[in-house]
Amino acid sequence: MSSVISVLSKIPNILKELQKTLPNIKFHQVEETDKDEEFIKSNIIIADFDYLAPHIYDLPNVKWIQGTWAGIDALLPHLKPNQPPSFPITRFSGKHFGHLIGEYVLANIINHERSMFEIKQNQSKQQWIINGKINDHRSLYDLTIGILGIGSIGNRVARILNFMGAEIFGYGRRTEIDMSNYKHISQYFNKDGLFDLLQKCDYIVNTLPNTADTKGLLNGNVLENCKEKGSVFVNVGRGSIIYEEYLVKALEKKWISAAILDVFDKEPLRSDSPLWKMPNVFISPHVSGTSRARDIAEQFSENLKLFQQNLPIPTTVDFSVGY
Amino acid sequence: MSSVISVLSKIPNILKELQKTLPNIKFHQVEETDKDEEFIKSNIIIADFDYLAPHIYDLPNVKWIQGTWAGIDALLPHLKPNQPPSFPITRFSGKHFGHLIGEYVLANIINHERSMFEIKQNQSKQQWIINGKINDHRSLYDLTIGILGIGSIGNRVARILNFMGAEIFGYGRRTEIDMSNYKHISQYFNKDGLFDLLQKCDYIVNTLPNTADTKGLLNGNVLENCKEKGSVFVNVGRGSIIYEEYLVKALEKKWISAAILDVFDKEPLRSDSPLWKMPNVFISPHVSGTSRARDIAEQFSENLKLFQQNLPIPTTVDFSVGY
Repeated sequence: MSSVISVLSKIPNILKELQKTLPNIKFHQVEETDKDEEFIKSNIIIADFDYLAPHIYDLPNVKWIQGTWAGIDALLPHLKPNQPPSFPITRFSGKHFGHLIGEYVLANIINHERSMFEIKQNQSKQQWIINGKINDHRSLYDLTIGILGIGSIGNRVARILNFMGAEIFGYGRRTEIDMSNYKHISQYFNKDGLFDLLQKCDYIVNTLPNTADTKGLLNGNVLENCKEKGSVFVNVGRGSIIYEEYLVKALEKKWISAAILDVFDKEPLRSDSPLWKMPNVFISPHVSGTSRARDIAEQFSENLKLFQQNLPIPTTVDFSVGY
Repeated sequence: MSSVISVLSKIPNILKELQKTLPNIKFHQVEETDKDEEFIKSNIIIADFDYLAPHIYDLPNVKWIQGTWAGIDALLPHLKPNQPPSFPITRFSGKHFGHLIGEYVLANIINHERSMFEIKQNQSKQQWIINGKINDHRSLYDLTIGILGIGSIGNRVARILNFMGAEIFGYGRRTEIDMSNYKHISQYFNKDGLFDLLQKCDYIVNTLPNTADTKGLLNGNVLENCKEKGSVFVNVGRGSIIYEEYLVKALEKKWISAAILDVFDKEPLRSDSPLWKMPNVFISPHVSGTSRARDIAEQFSENLKLFQQNLPIPTTVDFSVGY
C-alpha cells in the first residue's frame, strides 16, 4: 500500500495530534485541493465533509475516507443519484461528545447558580463583593433538571448531573421506557407530559436533534409552563426546537429566568440578534461538544488497524439509508 | 420552655430559611444587640461567632447557642481564663462544604480549559468566535490533578473530579495511607514526595487548613517544579500556603500557567494587589464553600430535636480542647 494519507481539514492541531498518535505514519496536509497532486493520489483521506464534498468523484486511488464530522449532510448535495461512492466513508462517531457536552452543561449551571461571571466582573474592578447569589446559591442537590432527549448524549448529561446531586426527569418519544436502564432518571415524560415536565423543573436541558418531531416543539406559549419555577433553559441540542422570536418572548415575559445557549435556529447567530445583549443569557458558538483533533486521531488510529486487516469499520456510511 | 429564639446573624436569608424549615417556631432577628430585650431574655440563640463574642457572658437565660460558623476563633479573645460558657455552644458542621467546594473547583477547571470567560467576553461584543481553547480544549479525562489535603473536603473534591474523568494524586501528612479507602486516588504523596507530585500534575488543588505544617509550604521556589507541566494552581484551602509575593513570582516566571484563587493570605485581598489584574488569574471572595442559610436551618432543625430531648448535640464545642 502506498503511504499517502492526506488530511483535508480545518480542525485546529489535527496534523499535530495525528502525528503524535501515529508517529510512524507520514501525513500530508492539503492546503489547496485543486493544485495538490498527493491529494489526488491518496489512498486514505481524513476529511471535513464540507471540504471533501466537491471532490468525492475525483479521487481515483482512494480506498477509504475517514470523516471528521458525525453527520453526512454536507455530502448529500454532491452525490449523483444511485451512484454512491465506491469506497467506504466512515463518520466520526464522537464518542466523547456526551461527556464534553456534560462538562459544558454542568459548568454553566454552576456558573449561573453562583454568579461566576459577576465574580469575574467584580475582579476586573478589583472589588471583593460578597452578596446575592455569590454567597447564597443553590447547589446541584437543590435542583430538579429535565433532560429533553435521553439518547447517548442526553443520558451522559443526565448521569453527570445526577452524580452531582440533581434530581433528573427525562423526556423522549417513547410511551414508556424500562426505568431499570435509567437509574439516574427518576421520572420519564413523553409528548403528553411535556407541560407537566416543564412545570416541575428548575432547568430544562435540550439535547434533542433536529427532526420533524422536535422542530418548534417549544414554540408559541409552551414555555409559559416554566413561569412558576422560573426555569433556566439550556440548549445543547439543536436551535430548531424553539425559534428565536419565541425564545426572546419567553425571556421578555420572564416565563424562563435565564438561558444558556450553544445552538441556534440559524448559525452563526446573526450579530443583530437581541439574544446577545439580553440579561441572564449566556451565548457560546456551538462548541459544547466539538470534534477535537485528539479524539479524531484516536478514532482514526483504531479504524486504521481494522482497515489494514480488511475488517469492517463501525460508522461506515450506508448511503442507501443515509447515515 | 419560653419560645424566644433569637437570630444574631448577617447571613443572607437566614430568617426566611429558618421559618421555611420550622414554620411553627417564632424566630426573632436581632438588629441592635444592646437595645434588644428579647435577645437578652433568649433561651436559644443562633449566631455568627464574631457578632456573638462580646455578649457571651451577658446572656442570663441562654440554654444553647447554635453557631453559624465552623471555626470558633472569633470567640477565643472574649473568653475569660478557666471560665468557659456554662451553656453548650455548637459549631456549624458545614457538612455540605466539601460538595460546594467541589462544584466550585470543577466549574472553574472547565471554565479555564474551555475559555468560558473569553466566550462571555465575545458575547458582550456580539462576536461568534471559535478559536484557541474554545474549540480545542482538554476535558477532565485529559487531566492529572493533585489534591493537597485529603480530609473530608479534599476527598469530596477528589471524588467529584475523578468521576468526571481526571486522574487524582493525593497529598497528606501521613507516611502512607490505606489506598483501599481512597479508590478515587491513584497515587499518594507526603512531604518527601511534594516536588515529585508538583512535577506530575496539570492542576494543583489546595484544600489544606492553616497549620504550622502548611504555612508557607509552597513559598520560595517550590512552584518551579510546576514549570514543565505549566500547572494551574487552585486554592480553596487557606491563603497561608503561599504568600502573595511568591504566588505573583510563580505566575510572572510562568512556573504555573494560571491560578484560581478563592482564599488569600490576607482577606479581603487588598485592592492594590497585583493578583487582581494578572492574566490567567481568577479571583473570588472566599465563597467556594459558604455557610448557606438553608444548610444552617437544616442543621439547627436537627439539633433542636436533640436539644428538646436533652440529648447531646454533635459539634458541641469543648473549650478545654479548643473546638
